[in-house]
Amino acid sequence: MRIGYIQTDPVFGDKERNFQRVMEIVDVEAVKADLIVLPELFATGYAFTSRLEAHDLGELPGEETTRFLCRLSRETGAAVAAGFVEVECEQWFNAAMLVDGDRVINTYRKIHLFNKEKMWFAPGDKPFAVHPVRGARVGLMVCYDWMFPEAARSLAMLGADVIAHPANLVMPYCQKAMVTRCLENRVFAVTANRIGTEARGEDKFTFTGGSQITSFNGGVLSSAPTDRVHASFVDIDPHAARDKKINEYNDVISDRRPGLYTTG
Amino acid sequence: MRIGYIQTDPVFGDKERNFQRVMEIVDVEAVKADLIVLPELFATGYAFTSRLEAHDLGELPGEETTRFLCRLSRETGAAVAAGFVEVECEQWFNAAMLVDGDRVINTYRKIHLFNKEKMWFAPGDKPFAVHPVRGARVGLMVCYDWMFPEAARSLAMLGADVIAHPANLVMPYCQKAMVTRCLENRVFAVTANRIGTEARGEDKFTFTGGSQITSFNGGVLSSAPTDRVHASFVDIDPHAARDKKINEYNDVISDRRPGLYTTG
Repeated sequence: MRIGYIQTDPVFGDKERNFQRVMEIVDVEAVKADLIVLPELFATGYAFTSRLEAHDLGELPGEETTRFLCRLSRETGAAVAAGFVEVECEQWFNAAMLVDGDRVINTYRKIHLFNKEKMWFAPGDKPFAVHPVRGARVGLMVCYDWMFPEAARSLAMLGADVIAHPANLVMPYCQKAMVTRCLENRVFAVTANRIGTEARGEDKFTFTGGSQITSFNGGVLSSAPTDRVHASFVDIDPHAARDKKINEYNDVISDRRPGLYTTG
Repeated sequence: MRIGYIQTDPVFGDKERNFQRVMEIVDVEAVKADLIVLPELFATGYAFTSRLEAHDLGELPGEETTRFLCRLSRETGAAVAAGFVEVECEQWFNAAMLVDGDRVINTYRKIHLFNKEKMWFAPGDKPFAVHPVRGARVGLMVCYDWMFPEAARSLAMLGADVIAHPANLVMPYCQKAMVTRCLENRVFAVTANRIGTEARGEDKFTFTGGSQITSFNGGVLSSAPTDRVHASFVDIDPHAARDKKINEYNDVISDRRPGLYTTG
């Protein structure tokens, strides 16, 4: 299985430009991947300043961002996970979508909102979920979900082999934390971050790049530059993530002792 | 509050020698600490080859290892956390003890046993717990418990400010993982590891040193050499661990969404 990321440099509010940039960064004919992960909010940009902007840039699954992702999926032959603003009635979610060919497999609505996202977006209202992609099981989480071990743990308990992790990281901790997340769950992860700066309203965000593919054994299989657009793909055996044993005696999932935890 | 570790080089089975080494590494008069953490199984060594050895080296709280730890506590003025083999009827536990002056505050029995420990020791049968020490709240976990986010999370949910973490590390991952554990819970941790090699029976273990004091914000406050005995103490404000907010909008504990997790 070939998995990877496209690290982009979105401009706020300019979906067509941001779609186009994805296609400039990769030669879609040459990619030959099974799973491509794009950043959180890759089409809209990040630095919202009002719910009205979320309203204006929000979409239903099936609208323009879906059409672009399905096109990217068809042209590369890969399933694609990417962030978007999902609307449902009068709520907007910082969401991610998993598409394969012409099909929207599912959306995930970010469960742990970061910073002022809480002002524009509703918190995710659906549990974590895992989906079959090319014989592997792929789960979605978004950016700041990395801070909560319960996110990756939930995906692992649901059987994820690979975590698709669109991100817009502004803090320096996630990449190393993902090594721990992958080790503690014996799963692969693709963290697709963005680069660039957005200064809007009172806020200025500088995104830290460094997109990363992390192996089930804690190895870093790919690490992007911090200041340039970049795409990278690696071959993995997703079934390696189904053996949770780290030695003859220890299995990181079955060794858990839920009856002794205070984690409710 | 002044917290720290003594990184030692135990010899298997020679408790008196291992007690003496602790006193050679630190000048007890000069330490002036509030909490000292010693390695896992610091008095017995690690590489057990039979339950009979656990039987022979196991102790009740109050026996010789307790007496040594209470002496160290009295002479330094610090509470002391350290690993020992705890016996109860016909079970032996890879345990840690927290003593203060002449008092055994509690014992913790390692919940996640590593490798062949499962052959000699019974798995911990008591939940994680937190204890008051000099106005701070101290929780115990032992070595491989680092692999399970539920361990540090349980201690944080119980109100720990500082995790005392005796260890006998043989893998290279724990120190970086403890940065994530401290960040995700906003707690301090003292990981007291050992150095040296033990070759007994079929096994040879090389312990990796690198004892570490980690801050609630992920900073590494002290990092020991990998190949020498060492002691280090730092001043912290344990109350900093009680503010779980990382910005105006996010609190790493109250932002949790247990209803959406699959972590049972």
